[in-house]
Amino acid sequence: MNISRFIFGDPLKTENMSAEHLSKTKALAVFASDVLSSVAYATEAILLSLGVALSVSYSIPISLTIIALMSIIICSYWQTLKAYPKGGGAFAVAKENLGEFFGLITAAALFIDYSLTVAVSLSAGTFAIISALPILADHAVSICLVVLCIVTISNLRGTQDLAGVFAIPTYSFISALALLLICGLFVPAETPDSSVQDLQQSMTQGVATLAILRAFSSGCSALTGIEAIAGGVTAFKVPQYKNARITLLIMGLILGSLFFGITYLAHKFCIIPNFSETVLSQISKKTFGTGIFYYTLQTLTACILFMAANTSFAGFPRLAGVLGKEKYLPGRFANLGDRLAYSNGIIALAVVAFFLITCFKGQTQALLPLYALGVFISFTLSQAGMVRLQIRERQSNWQIKALISAIGAVATFVTLLIIIESKFIDGAWMVLILITSLFFMFKKVRKRYTETDSELDLKSGGLNKYLIHHQNLRPKVVVPVSKLHKGTLQALNFAKSLSDDVTAVVVNVNSRETERLKLVWRSMNFSMPLVILSSPYRSIVNPFLEFLFEQDDRDPDRGKSIVVMSSFVPTKLWHNLLHNQTAAVFKTALLYKKHDSQNTRIIVEIPYQMKQNNS
Amino acid sequence: MNISRFIFGDPLKTENMSAEHLSKTKALAVFASDVLSSVAYATEAILLSLGVALSVSYSIPISLTIIALMSIIICSYWQTLKAYPKGGGAFAVAKENLGEFFGLITAAALFIDYSLTVAVSLSAGTFAIISALPILADHAVSICLVVLCIVTISNLRGTQDLAGVFAIPTYSFISALALLLICGLFVPAETPDSSVQDLQQSMTQGVATLAILRAFSSGCSALTGIEAIAGGVTAFKVPQYKNARITLLIMGLILGSLFFGITYLAHKFCIIPNFSETVLSQISKKTFGTGIFYYTLQTLTACILFMAANTSFAGFPRLAGVLGKEKYLPGRFANLGDRLAYSNGIIALAVVAFFLITCFKGQTQALLPLYALGVFISFTLSQAGMVRLQIRERQSNWQIKALISAIGAVATFVTLLIIIESKFIDGAWMVLILITSLFFMFKKVRKRYTETDSELDLKSGGLNKYLIHHQNLRPKVVVPVSKLHKGTLQALNFAKSLSDDVTAVVVNVNSRETERLKLVWRSMNFSMPLVILSSPYRSIVNPFLEFLFEQDDRDPDRGKSIVVMSSFVPTKLWHNLLHNQTAAVFKTALLYKKHDSQNTRIIVEIPYQMKQNNS
Repeated sequence: MNISRFIFGDPLKTENMSAEHLSKTKALAVFASDVLSSVAYATEAILLSLGVALSVSYSIPISLTIIALMSIIICSYWQTLKAYPKGGGAFAVAKENLGEFFGLITAAALFIDYSLTVAVSLSAGTFAIISALPILADHAVSICLVVLCIVTISNLRGTQDLAGVFAIPTYSFISALALLLICGLFVPAETPDSSVQDLQQSMTQGVATLAILRAFSSGCSALTGIEAIAGGVTAFKVPQYKNARITLLIMGLILGSLFFGITYLAHKFCIIPNFSETVLSQISKKTFGTGIFYYTLQTLTACILFMAANTSFAGFPRLAGVLGKEKYLPGRFANLGDRLAYSNGIIALAVVAFFLITCFKGQTQALLPLYALGVFISFTLSQAGMVRLQIRERQSNWQIKALISAIGAVATFVTLLIIIESKFIDGAWMVLILITSLFFMFKKVRKRYTETDSELDLKSGGLNKYLIHHQNLRPKVVVPVSKLHKGTLQALNFAKSLSDDVTAVVVNVNSRETERLKLVWRSMNFSMPLVILSSPYRSIVNPFLEFLFEQDDRDPDRGKSIVVMSSFVPTKLWHNLLHNQTAAVFKTALLYKKHDSQNTRIIVEIPYQMKQNNS
Repeated sequence: MNISRFIFGDPLKTENMSAEHLSKTKALAVFASDVLSSVAYATEAILLSLGVALSVSYSIPISLTIIALMSIIICSYWQTLKAYPKGGGAFAVAKENLGEFFGLITAAALFIDYSLTVAVSLSAGTFAIISALPILADHAVSICLVVLCIVTISNLRGTQDLAGVFAIPTYSFISALALLLICGLFVPAETPDSSVQDLQQSMTQGVATLAILRAFSSGCSALTGIEAIAGGVTAFKVPQYKNARITLLIMGLILGSLFFGITYLAHKFCIIPNFSETVLSQISKKTFGTGIFYYTLQTLTACILFMAANTSFAGFPRLAGVLGKEKYLPGRFANLGDRLAYSNGIIALAVVAFFLITCFKGQTQALLPLYALGVFISFTLSQAGMVRLQIRERQSNWQIKALISAIGAVATFVTLLIIIESKFIDGAWMVLILITSLFFMFKKVRKRYTETDSELDLKSGGLNKYLIHHQNLRPKVVVPVSKLHKGTLQALNFAKSLSDDVTAVVVNVNSRETERLKLVWRSMNFSMPLVILSSPYRSIVNPFLEFLFEQDDRDPDRGKSIVVMSSFVPTKLWHNLLHNQTAAVFKTALLYKKHDSQNTRIIVEIPYQMKQNNS
């Protein structure tokens, strides 16, 4: 108990739920870590997909295309922020405007995206550490899992007051990268190998096109995280949506410049990506050498990537909570834990991330093909939803607004198709299967809840059965007895208070003891019958169960017989060895009997407390 | 179920309990395997203790002394058989004549002896196999454990009809050994190394004496098993005790001649014991070479040793059953399993033997120092008991009979002292500690049972409390409610049938739902109050438990409140994930609360069966 308090902190009252509103500066720190952290791997993903030959000519155009796409998405979200001032997560927007089907698809896509964000960010953060300290290369998975563990625990503690803490590494990372880009401009460029030129010319048109599309798809991973602000409008200071818009804009500008800058430098220095050192690490080394700045930048990169994982730990449980409340997921996902965090969602995400990291052995580039797909599904559907909303509401300038959202929807949809096309075999098929499965799971859970509710509902009729205590349909009560002692008397007494149809039952295993019991029974003048069951095979359980089922069948209207039995509560643990645990044995046996497999029998154990002073 | 039936066989009716009586021939086969099998290791134990130097002069005198001791014991048991025609196990004789203290000491000694017999016999049997097939030497422990497993299972099946099967290997073993001894007489003797003579002369008197005493102690392991017939008189054909006496005599003659014969041949061939081949195997090789006879003898030796282990599997559970009936051990040891075997005792013995074999790595000679001690304690006490009996009863010639038993008691007591003296450091101390611990355990278990019985006994007063249903002290019943549905109604209904003091309780986690519940509650016009508990930390369990304990304290005379709650019985396993399992959570929480740690509260779960046709 105390250990758990130490790790997870004291419980927090519901009224303590933070009402703090974030300034733009703090909000940027909280929401930007996910989106900004992607500059640590997006350029690398592009270069890897293009290969050495094509990188020379195409890396910069591709990154510019991605930045253009980003601008379109930001314009579209600019409108969402105003339309959904209470928080317009993609799920809410899609469900409200496009219906349950698209809403659930969006939710499924987002769940996968959140899970992958954790796995990708932790892997990339670990890669940043390994690039600086190659000695740790063999322990990548372990490092990932340790950080996952820390992030999970800190989220179970609740992260309400961490906004301030987040600001420092985020702004340091932005500054450090800015410094790197500026200084990088003054470092002389390197000329590519002349053989590369030849290589490029020898490539067929088709192969080149496919590589370019794949590079574009991979680069789009830079855009994950943009939607975070849309889901968190309520966290801003008033005027909330206006502050959120400005923050979104600033975030876009920073992301665009950093992403382009890194791609430019990678191009300028003819960086070739490899699996032992990140592109960012190579650029940094060429610019500053391996001095203090290099290590600072690597540390900050790892920090911001781990913080990005942390962002998903806010988003995933919150979405699970919304789905839990709407009964698409088990209700427990909607319960706030005693630290005001959605503990069950946090644990679920940690488990999924654990599997992703161990299956993909903590390699960022192996996870990336799965990534981005989910985000672009949610982008497309959320913006399509906005189009629908604007057409329906027809506010001022709705045509222009709808057009902007439509452009966004089309652009992200085209990107989505490209991602599916170019990454299908690499892993996109898995994501599509998963999204479909999640969708059907949501539907099934919801259906089950609806059925349960309607069956249990008081309005569904047949209520009389439950409302009136049927004196004439008194329950049948059976009390198994092995010996007459105070515990048995307690049980018989309780049974009599339940019904006047009580039958005591003894299984005749030892005929001498049974005779003795019969004598005592007669001398007590009980009003209920004592039934003696023969047991040719010396089993206590089977004859009793047979009697029970027979009794049930005899008068089925009166329901199953209630079993009342005495059970000892020993004062010391070893005393359990001395008693026969008949109650536990009966219960277990009932569970495994076909006749009673549903376990719908009322079994009442009457505990008999032994005196404390016994040794 | 079917697998278990296949392995252990169909259950047997109590009336099928074998009433078959054994002829002397069959009885000898059943009872002699333990005692005869010891010739396979007793000579070896003597030679090992004496060392090469002393063996030449002392092995034969020592074995003669042991045979003399055996004759004394057999004379003494000759009387026990008549005095206890219903079976005079050492425990019965000692307890009846010397009182509970010595009875329990005897029982403890016998338990240890039985356990060691299993371990020693299995190890020695395995050694016989390994001597013939040295390739298996590395797998000694595994072979032991496999045989242990087979013996355990066959005993759980019951060994009632196996007497006939036992006869074949027993008589074959006796014949084969007799043949070996006769042929061995015609094989020329070998002269010992002359250096051995010098070695012997250089030895000090003290060292030699100790070695001789140790050799004698070790050789006494040949005498374990003699008491088996005394415990099983009832298994013989009438006139039972007379047939048992004759069988005992024949057994003694066979044991004596085989034991002496082997020792003589070992002496004649100057056999030096070693850890890779048994003495018996060496003798057999010298006499017959490694032909078919050699392998037959080794097989038969292994067989009879494994059968000796089997003998303990009859004795130990039967003794445990007697102690269980007399409440010195948990009552379940006295239950006959569905195959008419004392299953619990068999399993207990198997577990103990498993530990002995693995701890001592299946080495016979490592186990022997622990052995014999237990047997001689039981010999001494059982014969001392006979002396007491004869003095008390004063039948014809009682003086002579008492003298015979007294000589037996003194002889075995002196042997016991020699064993303790010479083997104390080697392991006898462990046995003494174990016997003492077992003794105190028996006493403690018995005390606990006596206390329980007297507390539960109907004669112990305060009965009114249990006999009369106190209408005026009606129980307090609490029903936790989260929502009003058919399941809750069922629970409320059941609660009302128990008492008219029913309180429904709702924990206010979600204030909107609580308000809704209050409205419905009012509309239903229930007669009982609905208490709303606030829950600042959103926990359902803690506020409810606090309420419960407060309610208990308010009117302690009326006992602890009974909790009645509804629980769902889902039609499919995964549905469990959708429900909150509140009942299970409450139960667990109650167990861990100091206030209620004794778990003496009546908690009634009212199962609500969901409709089967739901998906």
